Amino acid sequence: MTKARITVTLKQGVLDPQGKAIEGGLASLGFTGVDSVRQGKVFDVELQTTDPNQAKAELNDMCAKLLANTVIEDYSVEII
Amino acid sequence: MTKARITVTLKQGVLDPQGKAIEGGLASLGFTGVDSVRQGKVFDVELQTTDPNQAKAELNDMCAKLLANTVIEDYSVEII
Repeated sequence: MTKARITVTLKQGVLDPQGKAIEGGLASLGFTGVDSVRQGKVFDVELQTTDPNQAKAELNDMCAKLLANTVIEDYSVEII
Repeated sequence: MTKARITVTLKQGVLDPQGKAIEGGLASLGFTGVDSVRQGKVFDVELQTTDPNQAKAELNDMCAKLLANTVIEDYSVEII
């Protein structure tokens, strides 16, 4: 079994209204030293394969096909 | 300026319907070797402070107060 973590974040320059809302929320809670917040997604995936190279290839394929919108998002795959 | 990444994931045992839906989606795309998927959130935060200890304390406080629901979620803070 292979465990992996996929992190999907918005590309630089893409507006992140959810992050802005969190900035506002933090400010209203008294956290004044926050310059910016950007929100992304994380997927913890367990694969049956034990070959890390095969796992990585499969995970990248999953990102391109389903987990990330590559027009506006970047993704990174990490075997853990 | 301090950059940090906060990762919020569901605690073990907490049902993750979104993760289950992604598993179904991956299966229907032909990814048959997936044992489980669990989804979480990631926050990339920029703080004004340059003191990593102060930053870490503030970030933990943010998680406890706003970013994570500690009843069902775990969080980790990483200065990057």
